[in-house]
Amino acid sequence: MREDFIQSLNEELGADVLFGADIPARFRNDWAGLEPVTPLALVRPRTTEQISATLRLCDRFKISVVPQGGLTGLAGGARPIEGGVALSLDRMNGIDEIDPVMATMTVQAGTPLGVIQRAAEEAGLFFGLDLGARDSCVIGGNLSTNAGGNRVIRFGMAREHVLGLEVVLPDGTIVRSLNKMLKNNAGYDLKQLFIGSEGTLGIITRAVLRLQAKPAALASALCGCSGFPAMLELLKSARLRMGSALIAFEVMWPSFYDFMTGNLPELRRALSEPHGIYVLIEAGGRDADENRTMLEHILSDALEEGWVSDAVLSSSEREARELWAVRDSVSEYGRLMGPQTAFDVGLPTSVAGSVVSEIEAAMKNRWPDAIALSYGHIGDSNLHFVCNIPSLGKSQPHKEITELVFTAVGRAGGTISAEHGIGLLKKPYLKLSRTPEELALMERIKRAIDPNNILNTGKVLTI
Amino acid sequence: MREDFIQSLNEELGADVLFGADIPARFRNDWAGLEPVTPLALVRPRTTEQISATLRLCDRFKISVVPQGGLTGLAGGARPIEGGVALSLDRMNGIDEIDPVMATMTVQAGTPLGVIQRAAEEAGLFFGLDLGARDSCVIGGNLSTNAGGNRVIRFGMAREHVLGLEVVLPDGTIVRSLNKMLKNNAGYDLKQLFIGSEGTLGIITRAVLRLQAKPAALASALCGCSGFPAMLELLKSARLRMGSALIAFEVMWPSFYDFMTGNLPELRRALSEPHGIYVLIEAGGRDADENRTMLEHILSDALEEGWVSDAVLSSSEREARELWAVRDSVSEYGRLMGPQTAFDVGLPTSVAGSVVSEIEAAMKNRWPDAIALSYGHIGDSNLHFVCNIPSLGKSQPHKEITELVFTAVGRAGGTISAEHGIGLLKKPYLKLSRTPEELALMERIKRAIDPNNILNTGKVLTI
Repeated sequence: MREDFIQSLNEELGADVLFGADIPARFRNDWAGLEPVTPLALVRPRTTEQISATLRLCDRFKISVVPQGGLTGLAGGARPIEGGVALSLDRMNGIDEIDPVMATMTVQAGTPLGVIQRAAEEAGLFFGLDLGARDSCVIGGNLSTNAGGNRVIRFGMAREHVLGLEVVLPDGTIVRSLNKMLKNNAGYDLKQLFIGSEGTLGIITRAVLRLQAKPAALASALCGCSGFPAMLELLKSARLRMGSALIAFEVMWPSFYDFMTGNLPELRRALSEPHGIYVLIEAGGRDADENRTMLEHILSDALEEGWVSDAVLSSSEREARELWAVRDSVSEYGRLMGPQTAFDVGLPTSVAGSVVSEIEAAMKNRWPDAIALSYGHIGDSNLHFVCNIPSLGKSQPHKEITELVFTAVGRAGGTISAEHGIGLLKKPYLKLSRTPEELALMERIKRAIDPNNILNTGKVLTI
Repeated sequence: MREDFIQSLNEELGADVLFGADIPARFRNDWAGLEPVTPLALVRPRTTEQISATLRLCDRFKISVVPQGGLTGLAGGARPIEGGVALSLDRMNGIDEIDPVMATMTVQAGTPLGVIQRAAEEAGLFFGLDLGARDSCVIGGNLSTNAGGNRVIRFGMAREHVLGLEVVLPDGTIVRSLNKMLKNNAGYDLKQLFIGSEGTLGIITRAVLRLQAKPAALASALCGCSGFPAMLELLKSARLRMGSALIAFEVMWPSFYDFMTGNLPELRRALSEPHGIYVLIEAGGRDADENRTMLEHILSDALEEGWVSDAVLSSSEREARELWAVRDSVSEYGRLMGPQTAFDVGLPTSVAGSVVSEIEAAMKNRWPDAIALSYGHIGDSNLHFVCNIPSLGKSQPHKEITELVFTAVGRAGGTISAEHGIGLLKKPYLKLSRTPEELALMERIKRAIDPNNILNTGKVLTI
């Protein structure tokens, strides 16, 4: 059987397939930090038809297929499966078309996000999705995981940037729905099934993306607030008064802000005094003057109301970058902390403050030397925690920390994954965020579309 | 069997069920203009649990169920089925909660859109979905049909306003996903299945809606352009320069504009000369001055470039309403035209101009006295045609007109339904806008979720 499959795959894919030890190391894992896995075969197709042929074959032989994009996922969704096929989209890389009248871009799934952003700007437009891994991740992975990032409060999740998709189903059927129209209610909106289902229902091969007008100028402010309730008043005020000019509203707890500025001497503390919580507001109005005036008015009122204790407003791009430097220093974790347990949770905003206090206190209580840093996209109800217990060195109690955090999040009505997805790492905890009826419905859909359970088998769902 | 079902339904629903001749006339049809149908029973539940009990029973007895909202649909989706149950959501009417921190509103499915809009404004916020039937339609219907309207270019279709849903599946299972968070990637995004599937997969009973900051002021301009290509340049310029302040970009062909102003003497022609095409632009900036300045700059440049031949800019709300009066006079069709054949199609914007010319010419060619009015939301690629052949009186050739229009739309890569949905009326033509692979996938999903095919049986899909 296995030999028959290998022979057939060789016949179909020829030069675009590698086996076992010939598979380069980078295709054996993603960024989730799990043990690498060497799959039976790595396929790197150049066309949708080759992907269709691969899936048809795998479906016939009941061989699992793991779709791979930029391999930057943090939940293990793109880690290969032993005895299965890893199918990389890295050779399906390119922009098919930019349509300036429709303000759309049609791209192949393996195109890096950064390439798409720059091509949009060259065409005088703007692609509203942005995340730290922009030059490593690819759009197929962004869509499969419904990626988020810093600008969701203004431009929405990856899902909201998609008008059409080309997808290959597990049985090899190619479904071409490369719609460009903002309105299209001709039957079910099939693309929604494949966005955010982490490659378990189909492989996205092409996408029609919606482009936007570029914000003419950006300005930022760093604010110190007395605490969470004061910050919430600032959020409400900024949302109402800035409307669509509110591009980002990011929060850093002192745990995060003090650790970063304390350990990275190149980071300047732009506010002289310590505060209960720190906020970064980004404004994208129609010009630099408008941004400055808007932020000045909001901040002066907020100072008067006591919602903000102190604030700095950028007056140049360089100053704005400096204000963001602390928030952007998250890539330094590895060096500063050693092994971490990291979280990407969602919490109803009104209770997020008390949940963070509860988690930080519980960590310190259980492990007195625990480092637990809290920060996040509070405007989108999305928080990140990063934890390390220095005294435990390399043997971090990942499972115990995870249970502590997810239990608190589940109890507060939050979600165990706001933007990174479920993959392998969070699968055991999905039931904390979803009801049995929701899980049963997900499984029913999976069975209907992938009856042989070959696509990203064992990821997200427990079937 | 039938008697057993009736008895069980009476036992479960008691006072909330009516049979046959007792059913009021308004529940026997929607606005699509088809022949009324008297169903076996009308159920008007007050709770999600009653809906669950009804569906469980209907699934057991294999009785079709047609969910009904405000009955304003134009595709026959809410018309009852003979021998089936009509399930009206009209008693599930009410706002459960407004959350000012999350900027969300949780509503029951039978709540009228207008009530939701006004409640949002009273809370200092704004609900971005708007359509003509706002005080007759209800949110459950808006979501089931993924309604569009005038402001899609800025705020998106109904789908983009939803954060969470409560849904009852055909077997009576209640799926509660009343999520309020902007980011939630914990497994499949199940709500997407039920939005836009026209009540064929589940009955939406509650929704968490996303609210926005209210545009501080609105201003409008009416422009006359030499023709379609000039108008496209104006669209590109407005989109780039207005960004999120572009609230509406509506187009009226002379066929529509001249017919309306010619037949309704109360409508003032705000532009003195005739033009090749008319455009309404609505601006929603941060204040009235900004709107005026923004529109003035865009229009003066467009006049200079020759994209616009003449334009009027509103300087008060009253003037803005006057500019919109021609576009808003569509409710007068019935009186002015008699029986019509009406269309809601989507067309790739760059070819929309030639398709409209083709359709208007083909109509005149086939029926020399044909009236064919063209107008629409061109910023969303959405056009409406309304046709009447005066010499044929009450026996309009609906089928022949439909085939003429849909064939042209299908050939141009358009969609036979941009915002009204498929229902019964457009079902025979769905294959013009969808590939066999897309249709097969829709059917597979329908079978998986509604194996006994009881929910809105025979609507949308041919199974």
